[in-house]
Amino acid sequence: MLARVLAARAPGVTLGIGDDAAVLEAPAASLVWTIDEQVEGVHFRRELLSWRDIGWRSFMAAASDLAAMAAAPWCALCALVLPDDLDDLALEAIATGQRDAGAAIGAPVVGGNLSRGPALSLATTLLGRCNHPVLRRGALPGDGLWLAGRVGLAAAGLRALEQGSATDPSVVPAVEAWRSPGALVAEGLAMGQLAHAAIDVSDGLARDVGHMAEASGVQAVLFEAALLEDAELVAAATHLGVSALDLALHGGEDYALAVSSSAPIPGFRQVGAIRPGAGLVLRTAAGEQPLEPRGFDHFTSPSRRPGASGL
Amino acid sequence: MLARVLAARAPGVTLGIGDDAAVLEAPAASLVWTIDEQVEGVHFRRELLSWRDIGWRSFMAAASDLAAMAAAPWCALCALVLPDDLDDLALEAIATGQRDAGAAIGAPVVGGNLSRGPALSLATTLLGRCNHPVLRRGALPGDGLWLAGRVGLAAAGLRALEQGSATDPSVVPAVEAWRSPGALVAEGLAMGQLAHAAIDVSDGLARDVGHMAEASGVQAVLFEAALLEDAELVAAATHLGVSALDLALHGGEDYALAVSSSAPIPGFRQVGAIRPGAGLVLRTAAGEQPLEPRGFDHFTSPSRRPGASGL
Repeated sequence: MLARVLAARAPGVTLGIGDDAAVLEAPAASLVWTIDEQVEGVHFRRELLSWRDIGWRSFMAAASDLAAMAAAPWCALCALVLPDDLDDLALEAIATGQRDAGAAIGAPVVGGNLSRGPALSLATTLLGRCNHPVLRRGALPGDGLWLAGRVGLAAAGLRALEQGSATDPSVVPAVEAWRSPGALVAEGLAMGQLAHAAIDVSDGLARDVGHMAEASGVQAVLFEAALLEDAELVAAATHLGVSALDLALHGGEDYALAVSSSAPIPGFRQVGAIRPGAGLVLRTAAGEQPLEPRGFDHFTSPSRRPGASGL
Repeated sequence: MLARVLAARAPGVTLGIGDDAAVLEAPAASLVWTIDEQVEGVHFRRELLSWRDIGWRSFMAAASDLAAMAAAPWCALCALVLPDDLDDLALEAIATGQRDAGAAIGAPVVGGNLSRGPALSLATTLLGRCNHPVLRRGALPGDGLWLAGRVGLAAAGLRALEQGSATDPSVVPAVEAWRSPGALVAEGLAMGQLAHAAIDVSDGLARDVGHMAEASGVQAVLFEAALLEDAELVAAATHLGVSALDLALHGGEDYALAVSSSAPIPGFRQVGAIRPGAGLVLRTAAGEQPLEPRGFDHFTSPSRRPGASGL
């Protein structure tokens, strides 16, 4: 059944679904390779999403890692763990979401694995290709900090869904941002020619820019005014009675791209600066203050806190 | 913590653990790519294994898919879902098992993902390289059916563990086969020069050879006498009071390799033959009889039954 939903031809893919493994032609460029997994009850609740959304957003979360390396997505494998109460129609809708997300970024699903288990989970591994991957390390004092995509909007959407106020016009864009994020593949390829360092914003801007600053041995300054220029974010935050700045700094799952570059990059806007030092600083009209990352974190154990979403 | 356990240098790996994705040099050969996932309560129970075993065997199960394509394992990503009751020592032991398995087959873990969830699960994706992958389809009438590795022994070991008789000398090899399987990478590379078709035996010999026969449009004949030549299997079956033939035909998780070839292959023994027709036949001293696959199957839904372990 899934083979029928997912079947697709792709350049460089010799053998897709149906054998022990997929076979790919030797690529001419470097390979960029990631895996991400979303688990029901941790990363999503089924009552807040359609089955198709669940497939789509888990795929896009993985694809965002490739965008952050300036890689072009190539193809994907998906491993699903299915609880007994998930019927075949739900499974088909999940696969449709994965297929559509893959089609949207040019990376078809060429294989995978199904297993039974106590909770729905979706692991997605993606291969991408590029000549010059952009890493987290490499940000230089004097660079600007540039952002593509929104920050805080997805967290506002999740909050609206949890509060049962998701149909209010002021939060509709936020709900859509949480339900159907898109990996910024084109922006990732564009920044690859200019950026010194890059990261995708999956766990909150402060946390993820903090990772980049730490890996680069620099200090990052975030500009409050630039983060509050998003009128839809401010409107949603006002409706929800929460701080738009808090959402922008600490809300996750938007899959924006944060980039350190000495030159402007088409599709990116400046939201901060890089300078000598360490850690994060917020610049407001009243001056500067240190900023602690507070982003989304699945773990409480101290040893698992750093890099909880990667190894 | 995991980065410390897993850190390894590998040829062709430009960037390992710690960024958004791993970076690999463009390979000169075709790529073979697989993903497999093992879930607690479905594929294993923690009281029957050490944490290191759990890491090791989940890695080897994925690696076996590469062996079955005649590919040389290159590197791996691992995505773990960790329940709250799993402490850091257990996580480190799991990672040690993955690292040791990777080292045993020459494929280090170069990245991955951690997530919280209700049950322990381990997803492993592996890339391999080879010039000429061997597929499931391609078996020709007149070929012999050749086997590397054991069949039935792992299932005997699991049964012994479940019965609480795992320390009896007659089942010790079987328990070891279930706890610490090894992907037959060298045998896979060797058969790559001669085989017409190949599959790894993860779900039971009858089921997996049945897949190969179906994909190839041929009939496979299995020789009872050849399957009962394994003295340790017969001893374990006798002790457990079960049929050695049933174990050999339907027991899973040994990760043997079954190959269709017109010529003998070093490291393989003949266990059957390929001829025109369809389906499976068992040849005994009393004659031939049709054989129904009964192997391990995680699913009961009809639409999920075929290929439950792949897509």
